Amino acid sequence: MTHRRGLLIILSSPSGAGKSTLAHMLMDWDPTLAFSVSATTRAPRPGEVDGKDYRFVSEAAFKQMVADGEMLEHAHVFGHFYGSPMGPVKAAIEAGRDVLFDVDWQGAQQIGRSALQDHVLSVFVLPPSIAELRRRLESRGQDAPEVIQKRMQRSWDEISHWDGYDYVLVNDDLELTFERLRTIVAAERLRLPQQPGLVDFVRRLQAEFAKEEQ
Amino acid sequence: MTHRRGLLIILSSPSGAGKSTLAHMLMDWDPTLAFSVSATTRAPRPGEVDGKDYRFVSEAAFKQMVADGEMLEHAHVFGHFYGSPMGPVKAAIEAGRDVLFDVDWQGAQQIGRSALQDHVLSVFVLPPSIAELRRRLESRGQDAPEVIQKRMQRSWDEISHWDGYDYVLVNDDLELTFERLRTIVAAERLRLPQQPGLVDFVRRLQAEFAKEEQ
Repeated sequence: MTHRRGLLIILSSPSGAGKSTLAHMLMDWDPTLAFSVSATTRAPRPGEVDGKDYRFVSEAAFKQMVADGEMLEHAHVFGHFYGSPMGPVKAAIEAGRDVLFDVDWQGAQQIGRSALQDHVLSVFVLPPSIAELRRRLESRGQDAPEVIQKRMQRSWDEISHWDGYDYVLVNDDLELTFERLRTIVAAERLRLPQQPGLVDFVRRLQAEFAKEEQ
Repeated sequence: MTHRRGLLIILSSPSGAGKSTLAHMLMDWDPTLAFSVSATTRAPRPGEVDGKDYRFVSEAAFKQMVADGEMLEHAHVFGHFYGSPMGPVKAAIEAGRDVLFDVDWQGAQQIGRSALQDHVLSVFVLPPSIAELRRRLESRGQDAPEVIQKRMQRSWDEISHWDGYDYVLVNDDLELTFERLRTIVAAERLRLPQQPGLVDFVRRLQAEFAKEEQ
């Protein structure tokens, strides 16, 4: 087939619904998948690698990128800026590689309205129940009840925006949910905006048809 | 999972590109698939069964259906009306059955703007080459060169509207093309508008969350 353009794959879910696991399964399934590394103005923590965990930039540089329309989405959280730079994403999708985004509903919304909106595939992952969500958050075993409660509240805020996505999956069975996610990605790769080579293909058909008509 | 709503699956292609074969493969794959039977004002031909091949109606009845907004699409061809009635399609998709349409680009466009537009999945099938398209038309072995030439002209008219569809498949390998079509249908069944049960599911999550908060 003709060459394809990559997708911006947005995977959102409340913490504890299985998003990270699904993201890793997707990257194992297709190692050409790129991950969108966020830019941030916060200082690196010990062990964090610039360009891998984050792209660490100054506040002036960050604001310039926003002003230049170079951020697909950005947010201000606890005094620091976070955002998804457009450049690496554009380069990847033009080379036919999909890019995976781990963003919340606000990031998903901004990317969905960006210059690359025709290439966005957004998937929201729901937990099978609130009890199961709490169980998964508690089983990490490190957090005080108040922290868990705060996370549950944030999870609910995230869940309440479930209907702004192209697809919504209830993760009651990890293998089945992954199978569905894989089917969705495989199909979306065939959508018209992902198949720029078809324009040339149809042009060749037209030339062939015109030649026959002579 | 929660119950789903059916899709309106539109399969278009020039005659000779493999549309009918793909439609049959799809119906063999999923016998619950319904086929949209067109209404027409032309007289039945010998052997044609009302309600199976066509729904034969009077011109007055047809025009009334159009006036009532009961036609998803319709056209006037060689003095007769043809159209896709909304009623059976609505009933099928509400029962969770997909409905297959064999319509040309004008029908596809009208259905894509109809009241059921959120549930439409449109796929266009391209031939691998014009030479192959001609070969397939000629291999039927029944038609005079002028008839073939007229068909080729009509095929080109159809091909020239290739970019009005959600997906475009080049049918250079029937099995591969069918595999792609199947993947597309499986994925599109998971889209938000096809999953009305999710509204209730999220409502239950919300109730569970509210109870916990007390």
